[in-house]
Amino acid sequence: MSLIYNRVALIGLGLIAGSMAHAMRESGLAGEITGHARSEATRDTAREIGLCDRICDSAAEAVAGADLVVLAVPVGAMGDVAAEIAPHLAPGATVTDVGSVKQAVIDAVGPHIPDGVHFIPGHPLAGTEHSGPRAGFASLFRNRWWLLTPLPGTDPGAVDRLSGLIAAMGAKTDRMEPGHHDLVLAVTSHAPHLIAYTMVGVADHLRRVTDEEVIQYSAAGFRDFTRIAASDPTMWRDVFLHNKEATLDILGRFTEELFVLQRAIRMGDGEQLFDYFSRTRAIRRGIIEAGQDTDAPDFGRTPGARP
Amino acid sequence: MSLIYNRVALIGLGLIAGSMAHAMRESGLAGEITGHARSEATRDTAREIGLCDRICDSAAEAVAGADLVVLAVPVGAMGDVAAEIAPHLAPGATVTDVGSVKQAVIDAVGPHIPDGVHFIPGHPLAGTEHSGPRAGFASLFRNRWWLLTPLPGTDPGAVDRLSGLIAAMGAKTDRMEPGHHDLVLAVTSHAPHLIAYTMVGVADHLRRVTDEEVIQYSAAGFRDFTRIAASDPTMWRDVFLHNKEATLDILGRFTEELFVLQRAIRMGDGEQLFDYFSRTRAIRRGIIEAGQDTDAPDFGRTPGARP
Repeated sequence: MSLIYNRVALIGLGLIAGSMAHAMRESGLAGEITGHARSEATRDTAREIGLCDRICDSAAEAVAGADLVVLAVPVGAMGDVAAEIAPHLAPGATVTDVGSVKQAVIDAVGPHIPDGVHFIPGHPLAGTEHSGPRAGFASLFRNRWWLLTPLPGTDPGAVDRLSGLIAAMGAKTDRMEPGHHDLVLAVTSHAPHLIAYTMVGVADHLRRVTDEEVIQYSAAGFRDFTRIAASDPTMWRDVFLHNKEATLDILGRFTEELFVLQRAIRMGDGEQLFDYFSRTRAIRRGIIEAGQDTDAPDFGRTPGARP
Repeated sequence: MSLIYNRVALIGLGLIAGSMAHAMRESGLAGEITGHARSEATRDTAREIGLCDRICDSAAEAVAGADLVVLAVPVGAMGDVAAEIAPHLAPGATVTDVGSVKQAVIDAVGPHIPDGVHFIPGHPLAGTEHSGPRAGFASLFRNRWWLLTPLPGTDPGAVDRLSGLIAAMGAKTDRMEPGHHDLVLAVTSHAPHLIAYTMVGVADHLRRVTDEEVIQYSAAGFRDFTRIAASDPTMWRDVFLHNKEATLDILGRFTEELFVLQRAIRMGDGEQLFDYFSRTRAIRRGIIEAGQDTDAPDFGRTPGARP
């Protein structure tokens, strides 16, 4: 593959930025990769593992001369970072972000972007429950979606160039209106995360069942929740605070629906439960057919071949 | 390994019974394995793939002469099956079950067991989202828990013999009081399953977000819910109907807790969210340390090595 950007600046050095660094290096997509993180410990770790070509002590230094700047900080920090780097952005540069919420980021970052700089908000639908500069790996984006929510009037050439980088890292791009993005993600990601956090919290508080038992017997379903609920607390705090409306809407629907099933259990209405559970199976089949998961039982966790 | 039972009868030929058949054969733990399923189609499939040594058209025929009988049918069907086989059980035989609820099974099965037959209720904490006679595989129980809830006065020799079989199939056994079992499982399995079913149902009903988008962008958290929600509808209907009290108790706690977090989002209380999310991370670490899951990111789903 060939060079797409001469200098890429990564602001924030967590799982996503780290994985981008690995993926861009693997295919020679960037001439130089600079990086900055607010925490000195993170910068030290990044230097130690050689995550970028150059780790800078300030965001301003990192973005100087970059033709692509990637904001990979928690959603709540995007506005401050944008204000800090704005005077140092090169004319013609592209600024993108990887935040899980789009309208709030556009509102926070947009006003700081100078004329002649392209701002193209983005969101890679990829991640693991690990975080920090050591968590990244080159294949994170492979076969995953990377949504872009460009504003009206954005230079098509700049969008195509960014899309080219994303495709070269193995992801599929799609474009979406920011508000619609935030609703889709509230359903597919934000509400499920809050629910998983809640269920793990319930288990934690339940004193009649010892912690040890909850942990020991987790394989029966709870385990999948704890993986989700182990995700980065700062990132998720910011997601909920900045996609408040859509998340609360979905949670409201969720509670209504849960009460219907709870009532069916209380009333002993087996038919209603059976019908409900049969419908949800079809969605799962759709996800496997869409290539977003494996059909291997239990995510292929269990060792040993099937007969 | 050596023979533990001369003849094992499997009543119900789904994921668990099928996996037991594979595991027992792999290590030569049973002299003969007979099987019966109520559905003719299931029996035909089981014959076609040679799941057991002999597939019988009636449960009575399958249990005749067996020294171990395994009831592997949905919890709601246990009582009828027990009534049907009771007159045909060999003196000195052991009857066990693999139901996810224990007190209700004891109440339904216990009264039918004749004097001189040992009834030892059990529950393997193992499974996948697949079901039916083709779903089983020999390694399903490896490193998993298999809980036994023997009643007071049960012959210790019979319990030890059954524990020996379970250990030889690769599982770890533990003993528990039936009511406590049902509460622990309500937390670690039953409530999480109902919640996953509910969230998948919400996504299904949401008309503003097309099904296609929900499925396409599922990798962002929702996917794990759909795996859980793809589990066998009959089995789960029966679990909820027969562990009603404990499940409703846990769901009540869950809703209270969810409302607290929802309120924190509405009020913009970032500190409360952050503290909550930080606590749940510790539980996840405990599960990995207990050996009940992998530390590989995203369950090791993502192809490619980490750096």
